[in-house]
Amino acid sequence: MPLERRALLHALAAAPALAPFLALERAMAATPPPKAPATLDDARIQAAEAHHKFMEVPNLRMHGGETVSMLLYPGFTALDLVGPHYFFASMMGSKVELVTNQPTLAPVASDLGLAIQPTATLNTAFARPTVLFVPGGSLGTVAAMEHEPTLDYLVERAADARLITSVCTGSLVLGAAGLLKGRKATSHWVARDILAELGATPVDARIVRDGPVITGAGVSAGLDFALAVVEELRGRPYAQALMLQAEYAPAPPFPGGTEATTDPAIAGPMEGMFAPLIFQTRAAARRRAAR
Amino acid sequence: MPLERRALLHALAAAPALAPFLALERAMAATPPPKAPATLDDARIQAAEAHHKFMEVPNLRMHGGETVSMLLYPGFTALDLVGPHYFFASMMGSKVELVTNQPTLAPVASDLGLAIQPTATLNTAFARPTVLFVPGGSLGTVAAMEHEPTLDYLVERAADARLITSVCTGSLVLGAAGLLKGRKATSHWVARDILAELGATPVDARIVRDGPVITGAGVSAGLDFALAVVEELRGRPYAQALMLQAEYAPAPPFPGGTEATTDPAIAGPMEGMFAPLIFQTRAAARRRAAR
Repeated sequence: MPLERRALLHALAAAPALAPFLALERAMAATPPPKAPATLDDARIQAAEAHHKFMEVPNLRMHGGETVSMLLYPGFTALDLVGPHYFFASMMGSKVELVTNQPTLAPVASDLGLAIQPTATLNTAFARPTVLFVPGGSLGTVAAMEHEPTLDYLVERAADARLITSVCTGSLVLGAAGLLKGRKATSHWVARDILAELGATPVDARIVRDGPVITGAGVSAGLDFALAVVEELRGRPYAQALMLQAEYAPAPPFPGGTEATTDPAIAGPMEGMFAPLIFQTRAAARRRAAR
Repeated sequence: MPLERRALLHALAAAPALAPFLALERAMAATPPPKAPATLDDARIQAAEAHHKFMEVPNLRMHGGETVSMLLYPGFTALDLVGPHYFFASMMGSKVELVTNQPTLAPVASDLGLAIQPTATLNTAFARPTVLFVPGGSLGTVAAMEHEPTLDYLVERAADARLITSVCTGSLVLGAAGLLKGRKATSHWVARDILAELGATPVDARIVRDGPVITGAGVSAGLDFALAVVEELRGRPYAQALMLQAEYAPAPPFPGGTEATTDPAIAGPMEGMFAPLIFQTRAAARRRAAR
């Protein structure tokens, strides 16, 4: 590749407005970009060309300035949050913060002992996030359902948020804040019907949308949920690009994952073992509803 | 439920060896466990009964003492690690540690700015882990591929590990440590063929097993990979129980996730944008191979 063309492409990579000119330049080039670039510089030019091709995909919104506030509370389930975080933080130009409901920025431990470093407190969090997100958990979620500063924060930030969202039992925290009244929503399968105590209509679905509220089912549903949110914010082609980046073509090695597809000899006891947690979650929901 | 039976069940909950007696007791009971327990105590009894039923499932290994060492390095991809962490840490009795390759226990930032608190350093990590695990990443992974203390750690711990594992480009770190020579393995789709530079045979599959080595494909493949590992350690019924707990019945809201299922107008540029990273990864692999 001649040095002049290389310099031109470098300049174009920094000037998205010139994309149509790049298309012309590319059309004039006799050969497609080399599969294996010989130098790092060549690889960078290849990437710049690819970037421009990508931006020409119809209905693809590559750039955006969304703010995403993801709540952390002691005992949250890390996978509920990290699945969506991957997709939200991969959106070019988005700003994703991790908001602790504790007084300091100390790492917040999950229910399984994985501690994540917050980047903001309830007081310093984005004033008007595009997306407000709450992960689920177990006993920690019950505490969050009755933690007044957390509920006040959610109510205040939800007022201007474009999307009010949750995965797993995070929907019960949204419900405890009064944000699901009259809304369809979902949650982890063992806790889903508790949503009714908080004025919501429980729906057995992987992703449930009702107005600005998007809720995902249990734990791993966060990946499906996040793709739906990215589609809403950036269009389907961009969401499909991130889906490919995440290599999200799930292929569980054996069947299962729902009560219907799991041997009742396993699913029955699994539900039974959650009985104390569900009892306490329902009691918290009823206390909130009675206020 | 009479108080005597309640006391008996409480005692039984703490004495797994009495499970057969509990089965007899349950058979003698006229009614099935109540669906909605009236008190927290009743809920706990229901859970204890469920626990015993669960342990009676054939081929289910509920308890174990596995040690799992999961590597953290600057620039790792958080979802590569947190997907498997959910399943490994949910195995009753397992001990999961997060091993930083840095000198201190300071939180380690992912490629997308999510920092996780390690629980051990390379020096204090389990001496003989049952499972050794390496997540992928982007430029951080290239650095890890040439970080001698990390490679020395992996070689030493792999010697006695039952399973040597990775997700995404974590396999390139295993390869750089010389642990994939003559083995079939997989990686993120854009980096998979680089495995050949490190003496491995790249395989286009979600989960690849070769002897003690189990590798998963890109990012989200960690969930499928982890279920395969749990099945290996605890049998399929227990893995299916955790699959149900995670509500892992994936349902992406639109197609995609592989080159074959993604519009070439999207997949082509996505691959092109990785060119500089792939160039640098391949160069690191060649430097390792030349040593």
